[in-house]
Amino acid sequence: MFRRFASTSAWTLPPSIRQILSSGQESASNIHVHGWVKSVRRQKNVTFAVINDGSCASGLQAVLNNNLSGTLQGLTNGASVRMTGSLVASRGLGQAKELQVESLDVLGECNPEIYPVQKQALTVEYLRDHAHLRPRTDNGASVLRLRNSLLRALHGFFERHDFCYTHTPILTSSDCEGAGETFRVTPSSGSPAYHSSEEVQPESGATDPHSEFFSKPAYLTVSSQLHLEALASSLGRVYTLSPCFRAERSQTSRHLAEFWMLEAEMAWTREVGDVCGLVEACVKDALGAGTEERALLVKGVAGYEERLKGLETASRPEPWTRITYTQAVAELEKYHASLETRSHPFRFKPKWGRGLQSEHEKWLSEELVKGPVFVTDYPSSLKPFYMRTNDDEQTVACFDLLVPHVGELVGGSLREERLDALKNRMSAHGLDLEGEDYGWYADLRRFGSAPHGGFGMGFERLVSWVSGIENVRECIAMPRWAKRMLL
Amino acid sequence: MFRRFASTSAWTLPPSIRQILSSGQESASNIHVHGWVKSVRRQKNVTFAVINDGSCASGLQAVLNNNLSGTLQGLTNGASVRMTGSLVASRGLGQAKELQVESLDVLGECNPEIYPVQKQALTVEYLRDHAHLRPRTDNGASVLRLRNSLLRALHGFFERHDFCYTHTPILTSSDCEGAGETFRVTPSSGSPAYHSSEEVQPESGATDPHSEFFSKPAYLTVSSQLHLEALASSLGRVYTLSPCFRAERSQTSRHLAEFWMLEAEMAWTREVGDVCGLVEACVKDALGAGTEERALLVKGVAGYEERLKGLETASRPEPWTRITYTQAVAELEKYHASLETRSHPFRFKPKWGRGLQSEHEKWLSEELVKGPVFVTDYPSSLKPFYMRTNDDEQTVACFDLLVPHVGELVGGSLREERLDALKNRMSAHGLDLEGEDYGWYADLRRFGSAPHGGFGMGFERLVSWVSGIENVRECIAMPRWAKRMLL
Repeated sequence: MFRRFASTSAWTLPPSIRQILSSGQESASNIHVHGWVKSVRRQKNVTFAVINDGSCASGLQAVLNNNLSGTLQGLTNGASVRMTGSLVASRGLGQAKELQVESLDVLGECNPEIYPVQKQALTVEYLRDHAHLRPRTDNGASVLRLRNSLLRALHGFFERHDFCYTHTPILTSSDCEGAGETFRVTPSSGSPAYHSSEEVQPESGATDPHSEFFSKPAYLTVSSQLHLEALASSLGRVYTLSPCFRAERSQTSRHLAEFWMLEAEMAWTREVGDVCGLVEACVKDALGAGTEERALLVKGVAGYEERLKGLETASRPEPWTRITYTQAVAELEKYHASLETRSHPFRFKPKWGRGLQSEHEKWLSEELVKGPVFVTDYPSSLKPFYMRTNDDEQTVACFDLLVPHVGELVGGSLREERLDALKNRMSAHGLDLEGEDYGWYADLRRFGSAPHGGFGMGFERLVSWVSGIENVRECIAMPRWAKRMLL
Repeated sequence: MFRRFASTSAWTLPPSIRQILSSGQESASNIHVHGWVKSVRRQKNVTFAVINDGSCASGLQAVLNNNLSGTLQGLTNGASVRMTGSLVASRGLGQAKELQVESLDVLGECNPEIYPVQKQALTVEYLRDHAHLRPRTDNGASVLRLRNSLLRALHGFFERHDFCYTHTPILTSSDCEGAGETFRVTPSSGSPAYHSSEEVQPESGATDPHSEFFSKPAYLTVSSQLHLEALASSLGRVYTLSPCFRAERSQTSRHLAEFWMLEAEMAWTREVGDVCGLVEACVKDALGAGTEERALLVKGVAGYEERLKGLETASRPEPWTRITYTQAVAELEKYHASLETRSHPFRFKPKWGRGLQSEHEKWLSEELVKGPVFVTDYPSSLKPFYMRTNDDEQTVACFDLLVPHVGELVGGSLREERLDALKNRMSAHGLDLEGEDYGWYADLRRFGSAPHGGFGMGFERLVSWVSGIENVRECIAMPRWAKRMLL
């Protein structure tokens, strides 16, 4: 009927450089390639340029005859170009194929005098200040492709295990962890804006700009867990990959104000070891992903061979070590005491009932176990209200997964599914299970309660661990921390 | 070395009910099944119960002998149970397999007198008020599984087309759409909290609780597009699936204060039609996903057969109709004029230079085209600064995808990659391209600019379209809108 308006041709995307390089095709003529110039080497008769469209780490070598009509002088680092030519077996070393260029268009010039991304090594601080250009560096792009590979591995893992991929709210009225370091959210416009469309039915009270937008104070989520528990009470196995927020003013290499967290929750789990098993299977799957990008990144790290070996060992089928908090503290105390007459190895003396400090966590994974280690069954007093009390009534059925160089990568637990026990835990934390804030959480136990458990993994910490990049600020495209929010 | 701590057994998850039902296995003995009771039918000698663990829509029929030792009286709707028995071919109609139960454990009782999720039809409003239990209804769970299927289809589509899955910031200082309906973010705690760990290096100024947490005002993102453009300037093809926020006080069936948006951006695109092609291929892929859940949901909608037919037609390979804004306005004017002597079909008179109202969009897709329609090349004055100016200098290279019952599902455009043209557009919008806020955006054009384009799709609107669920509040697990934030 409206054929006169319709489009005609079927849609396809031209192949990316990754697809061109990985295809079995030995040679091809008249192909078009787009990319940014990564390097230029001018010789007497020919010019070699590597161009990359961002689809892979290696890029495509292009060979241009210096007689080539067109704007060869525009061929500078960072320029955006279109090349047409023939793909042939490379005569040089270092690449299997190269492009014999027949025509060149410079689509976006890049003045080498003022381009902020120069070839010499740029400092971490400089690149943080140029967050919009940081992905144009080799490492900056590799980190983002590594994230992509890890994300796909994680999604694949949960799909195979029949977990439902869900979205939990970012805006919430509850502070799951009780840490208090939350961000408050308010509408920024003083005057309420109404749609001019006929669908609008303004509610009474909406005209007062000073009233709460949501009737009650809204915060940014620090964890999706309580919400995931509600979804797991219907769907059984659920997970989410969600931004989380902590208004921490401290500056550490492991914390961001905005970070991504993978959280999973499953019903009908009775043993904390089963949740550890889920975590271990999931993380081992991720260790098999993005290995090419990972290897490139790890090579920039001191002692990289050892790190690569550590990752390889961790990805083997042999189960990761599991020790209880009580055992861990005993080991820490023994080590601490053994050195007491000479020097104190720890700034904080390990003692049952106290939290594990970062130095303790590092020692446990890097020295004692030399690999990932689950520490289970912490004292209840150290952990949030929702964790399930063990039969000893002193500890809770929880775990932290500690890995070398990063420390805590994952935290998880069984959740208290017994209504009375939960009430007791919450009273001890000064929380009212019957009030408006947590009444819904009690309902999950009141009606068809199922024993369940789950975990949360900081995604940037996973990236940090597998890439060897020490600071999580380099593990996310546009990091936010106290005093810093570019773009 | 620490074998004494190590776990032993290999980890597996028990099969879900979906896996049990879809496996080729005809029968099996001694299997364990967990689930919630969905219905109970007591007969003289046996009791039939359907239990479901949330993994699929259908559930598993369990047959229990009334002599069964155990707590048969606990077998009520909503109860959480564990059953052991044999899987056999069903003697009844309606299911291929059933479970002959040998033992039953009620893990979580559900008092039928007070359970808020009764069998009789519950109103939409009642379920909104019980957001934590809404996923326990058949439709509530189906919507969430449908989201899962659509998400997997979308991720799969972009993976196959070599797009990098990225995360863009939620906290930002810019208001991409210039709509002004943003949420402001501030730290909620009056006193700054420092970590006690040795890693902490407090910055000067961090102790003033009234100073900006990020040195400048922070807002919740309304669109990831500008950030995606920076990433596309390195990675070529990128997408993100991200929460977005609009502090709209209006109440419509198509708007939420917090919603999820799929946004994609690709370099080296020169025709807006190519971006339409990307959208069409992507959405058609999604139309093939979750068809079982979708069919269940659509059946609750008036005129559902027609809707299913419409979706089926839309998913065919034939290209969707594309018309320009100018053509669309001409059609609207013609229709409007044809009825002018009798009655006005539109509340708003269509006229070139004015925005299309919701009633116009509906008429174009539901009446004129009877299916999805791309409307392209709107007047520049109606669109944001970043859209690429067409040669006529009156319109921009953009499009909206309109679909029946929903209206605008997707919006996209080529982005202005020419620095001078962008400067002119921004001046006209009162924005300073050289200032702190947009200097980085200018850099993307200054250094190796590539022609590029992209789009954004409201994920809840996609769910609404394919499921027939009219209001987006029913298309997300825990919706937020003005005056409403439960959980």
